[in-house]
Amino acid sequence: MSGVRVLRPPLKSTARFLALTHPVTPIPRTGPAKILGYSRQFSTACFLRQEFSSKSAAQVAKRRLISGVKYTFLGIGVVSTSLLGVLLAFFLYDATTYHEPNFSDEPVKVMDLAINPRRGGPKNLPIVEYLLSEYDTSANSHSCNLPRLVILGSGWGAVSTVKNLHKQAYHTIVLSPINYFLFTPMLPSATVGTLTLRSLVEPIRKVVARIGGHYLQAEAVGIVPDENLVEVRQTHSNGDVCEFYIKYDKLVVATGTVSNTHGVEGLQHCNTLKTVEDARDIRQRVIENFERASIPSVTEEERQKLLSFVICGGGPTGVEFAAELFDMINEDLVDVFPKILAQQATIHIIQSRSNILNTYDEKIAEYAMERFKNDNIDVITNARVQRVFKDTVVFSQKQPDGSTIYKELPYGLCLWSTGVGQNEFTKHIVSTLPGQGNKRAIETDSHLRVIGAPLGSIYAIGDCSTVKTAIADNIISMLRSRAKEVGKNFDKLELTYHDWYRVAQTIKKRFPQASDHLKRVDEIFEEFDKDHSGTMSTEELEMLLRSVDSKIVSLPATAQRAHQQGVYLAKKLNKLALYADGLQANDVIMDGDIEDTIHKPFRYQHLGSLAYIGNAAVFDLNGHSFFGGLLAMYLWRSVYFAQSVSLRTRMLLAIDWLTRGLFGRDMIDV
Amino acid sequence: MSGVRVLRPPLKSTARFLALTHPVTPIPRTGPAKILGYSRQFSTACFLRQEFSSKSAAQVAKRRLISGVKYTFLGIGVVSTSLLGVLLAFFLYDATTYHEPNFSDEPVKVMDLAINPRRGGPKNLPIVEYLLSEYDTSANSHSCNLPRLVILGSGWGAVSTVKNLHKQAYHTIVLSPINYFLFTPMLPSATVGTLTLRSLVEPIRKVVARIGGHYLQAEAVGIVPDENLVEVRQTHSNGDVCEFYIKYDKLVVATGTVSNTHGVEGLQHCNTLKTVEDARDIRQRVIENFERASIPSVTEEERQKLLSFVICGGGPTGVEFAAELFDMINEDLVDVFPKILAQQATIHIIQSRSNILNTYDEKIAEYAMERFKNDNIDVITNARVQRVFKDTVVFSQKQPDGSTIYKELPYGLCLWSTGVGQNEFTKHIVSTLPGQGNKRAIETDSHLRVIGAPLGSIYAIGDCSTVKTAIADNIISMLRSRAKEVGKNFDKLELTYHDWYRVAQTIKKRFPQASDHLKRVDEIFEEFDKDHSGTMSTEELEMLLRSVDSKIVSLPATAQRAHQQGVYLAKKLNKLALYADGLQANDVIMDGDIEDTIHKPFRYQHLGSLAYIGNAAVFDLNGHSFFGGLLAMYLWRSVYFAQSVSLRTRMLLAIDWLTRGLFGRDMIDV
Repeated sequence: MSGVRVLRPPLKSTARFLALTHPVTPIPRTGPAKILGYSRQFSTACFLRQEFSSKSAAQVAKRRLISGVKYTFLGIGVVSTSLLGVLLAFFLYDATTYHEPNFSDEPVKVMDLAINPRRGGPKNLPIVEYLLSEYDTSANSHSCNLPRLVILGSGWGAVSTVKNLHKQAYHTIVLSPINYFLFTPMLPSATVGTLTLRSLVEPIRKVVARIGGHYLQAEAVGIVPDENLVEVRQTHSNGDVCEFYIKYDKLVVATGTVSNTHGVEGLQHCNTLKTVEDARDIRQRVIENFERASIPSVTEEERQKLLSFVICGGGPTGVEFAAELFDMINEDLVDVFPKILAQQATIHIIQSRSNILNTYDEKIAEYAMERFKNDNIDVITNARVQRVFKDTVVFSQKQPDGSTIYKELPYGLCLWSTGVGQNEFTKHIVSTLPGQGNKRAIETDSHLRVIGAPLGSIYAIGDCSTVKTAIADNIISMLRSRAKEVGKNFDKLELTYHDWYRVAQTIKKRFPQASDHLKRVDEIFEEFDKDHSGTMSTEELEMLLRSVDSKIVSLPATAQRAHQQGVYLAKKLNKLALYADGLQANDVIMDGDIEDTIHKPFRYQHLGSLAYIGNAAVFDLNGHSFFGGLLAMYLWRSVYFAQSVSLRTRMLLAIDWLTRGLFGRDMIDV
Repeated sequence: MSGVRVLRPPLKSTARFLALTHPVTPIPRTGPAKILGYSRQFSTACFLRQEFSSKSAAQVAKRRLISGVKYTFLGIGVVSTSLLGVLLAFFLYDATTYHEPNFSDEPVKVMDLAINPRRGGPKNLPIVEYLLSEYDTSANSHSCNLPRLVILGSGWGAVSTVKNLHKQAYHTIVLSPINYFLFTPMLPSATVGTLTLRSLVEPIRKVVARIGGHYLQAEAVGIVPDENLVEVRQTHSNGDVCEFYIKYDKLVVATGTVSNTHGVEGLQHCNTLKTVEDARDIRQRVIENFERASIPSVTEEERQKLLSFVICGGGPTGVEFAAELFDMINEDLVDVFPKILAQQATIHIIQSRSNILNTYDEKIAEYAMERFKNDNIDVITNARVQRVFKDTVVFSQKQPDGSTIYKELPYGLCLWSTGVGQNEFTKHIVSTLPGQGNKRAIETDSHLRVIGAPLGSIYAIGDCSTVKTAIADNIISMLRSRAKEVGKNFDKLELTYHDWYRVAQTIKKRFPQASDHLKRVDEIFEEFDKDHSGTMSTEELEMLLRSVDSKIVSLPATAQRAHQQGVYLAKKLNKLALYADGLQANDVIMDGDIEDTIHKPFRYQHLGSLAYIGNAAVFDLNGHSFFGGLLAMYLWRSVYFAQSVSLRTRMLLAIDWLTRGLFGRDMIDV
């Protein structure tokens, strides 16, 4: 129909105008034959054009107006028809998403070993090897005889690994007490209702299902490396505890960290910001304080205490929370609570360094400080929290004259966000395995394999791990054993420039993090050839290597690093699954390092940092830094929008921003 | 531009076809003069039509195809331009919603009496009369000398009252421990993530702000009717307690109810479904049970227990929760949890009557029973819960032969939804005021004034209250005093039909709920004039009135009733504010009942009931009942969509349904 309707000449053409002034037979609406008939009448109208062209100026204008209106209506019509069409299509689609259960289904097939796992291990607990969902899909049943890959955690490291694994590479089991992935970089926004928490989470079961893997909600509490077992515990809210082992062929530890206490007492009074519950608690507390402060019978002192928000730690989390809290108070709470509360509310950041955002470019730190000063956010630098009491924080502050003074700050909410500390499970691993010497994290080699565990059986990624870069020890011992093989005394060796060049290449390959410090091998050789003999003694080499070691900074505890390690590990595991059997069968590498043969060691690539600082954002992109107001904020949002984990979370993020724009932030703790 | 562009003849007209085959000078794009020039060339093309019409059949088809495609693109263009326009407009609007704080503002003015309230009352606590926000807006400062209207509660009754009050009628203060209004009828949907909780709530501060009122988050714990004081308590999560009085001129009690225990022990093991936290707890527990049941080392018996969901009470809440839970398990959980879990999950409803939904039409109850049978939802009728243990429910069930047997049902979650009970505060009111005899609710007269309180000082609405309809006592005592006034002996009076008719009119006016039972006054007169004397003795009249009393059912504890009472009360309060001063000044009613003079008593109008029963819905509209599948479900949704409290919640509801359709229910407890 619509195709035929437009046979009418266009409303704005003069021909149409003539046709209107000389009414013709109503336009036939169907069939090509009629089109010709119609055009014959139409051409008659064309002949008569001359007569009417003279008196048309005003009428043309009128016609144009009418046709303009008509086209506007046509436009509105097209748009609303499209929208109605979309709506109808959605309802039709939606109706298909409800379905009656099919109870005539045969009982689901479940493996015997899944229902009745054998017992064993040091504690004689059930050893889980197969799961209840083993035969649920054909993808699942194919994978149940593959090597068992157990991944501990559901954060950035674990999820990046899972998302990049091939479907049929492993029998994958993910274990975590938290059954969702949380998009942590935007968590501060969720504390004040700019975003909803559901926009930041993705059920881990959905992520795992995409590669035909399995998930169990449970917490790892120990490992038995000799028997390839992880000890696992699940505690039900009714108090029931369930303990068992999980069998692994390969284990990935990505269990993250807890907040670092720095030995400060009284942290039970503080809020933290690592989980969904933390964000909800904070929002609840902020609103609760405002509600309490609204009561007239509350004293002035108590009111100021309730409205004092103290943030310990001036890193990105603390800074973004301060900014979001400030926004919420000044854009939303001010409208519904007594105005005096917004005026009395104070935000304080206690920072141990001389700047907030001290890992960022200096210009950025200054901009942020300036902006916060403008917003009356009180930034207390060179200060250390000594103790937290129920109502006050006590901190020491270095004065310009070098002395230290102690101050007390009353608070209604105190956020503790001062870096990461080791959790119980990683402490257990460090104490169980030989060769682990770091008190802050699990040490791995540059292939992310946990040092002290059988080679290639346990990997550690993300904040819970650190890549050990003892280049000096490593290279010296390698050279020593090579010298021994060829019957030379290592201590008396003299390295030529050519020898050194080869050593440097080996270092770059095995410790990619060192590459930046080995760009000019010639200059380094000259610098450390102290006696300018043209050769380097082994003593001089050791000094050189220790100097390189000291220049390598440890990897940052960020989502970016965990993500890169997860992707790296998944790619290597995929390769291992493909080639390992073949290579080993052909004796290509029997005693050697198979991973070193098929994949490069991990190298961290810093892409930049960004932060939201209150209707403005800052970007530090490998030395190129920029910052600005609302436009930068929209850019900051787009970066995270693009990185968000799924289509669902992206849609929800967009809706959240829309809702905030239209109705303000969600002020209630639901 | 776009107006001019369409000067080209339409692509499908034959004229256009000719114009295309005989290329003409490019069409000029501006000005009416050029239009004429163009049409001259165009008419030349018309002359040549004859020559080409013969070879055109295939080409016409081709042109039509091309033009079809072009129109499609035009359509897409219009739609996407519109969308882009909307998006751009949103961004521009959004940018205006962020604003820098204005610290140059003068300090906010706050009343002295608001900051330092005087002390008094039996406990010598601060007496709050003015609030911190008294001068925040001009509307607020106008109202601070008006009569103080204190409303207790933030549910259906309180919010309906607030929404219908005139702006400048009272100095309104709303008090409630819960700072949001919850759209309770859809709460079961939120337990399983079909809806998000935020779509069902509206901050009470926003509602109150619309009439220039105030809100305090606090719980009423007692009243001092002699001094017009409400005793109030607020407990902070850090344990601090704050107590004070609120002064009122008029008090509205709309504090709702708690779950009815029916004297059953062990209810601490049960979940309830009245608040946002309840809904969240239930979802958390359901998912937790599925997670636990996924663990292979859990025994078969334990697994079946975890997946057994028991609902005590077959009213709308219980039934809707059962339906929603069933949907969630069979449409969502089945996809991400081992399939055997959905097959082993069982849902049981324990109902004391012979039918679920027993307040609905019988046909509806049967339909629901049939549907649940089909879904394998186990409906246990004629059963009473005796005791709830940590893992099992013990109930008794009447057998067809009249005997009673006892059964035990293991559960992983037990929902207690068996009607309403009195909370501590309403118990306190009932025990404080004289003339209160009902153990279940606060008794009011038909003007919703609490019996025993000074007339017109305290009102009670919603589930916490009941309208006392002691027509017999009331009318008899009225007649007795009238008889006394005119010096007659009441006991010996004989009422003619005309007398009775006048009495009936009085009853209908004062007790509207009785109207349905007084439709045929003549028939009733004949029925109770036992001796057919043509007159009625006072004894016969009393019998008649008691019979009417017994026929009046108490008002249902529903949102509908609370809403109607709230609207009624607000309208009356508005009238009182307008006329009371004038009427009293003119001595029109000095000792009489001012409310009776200016406003009718409350009459409940039952509009119908509806319920969701799992991809189907039932409607009971005053006797006309209907039910059905998906279409009825969409209708059920539309009814609640229309009733939702604000534009914001409506938009969020629509988004929730959209999200569910596209991505399934939210399975995580955030």
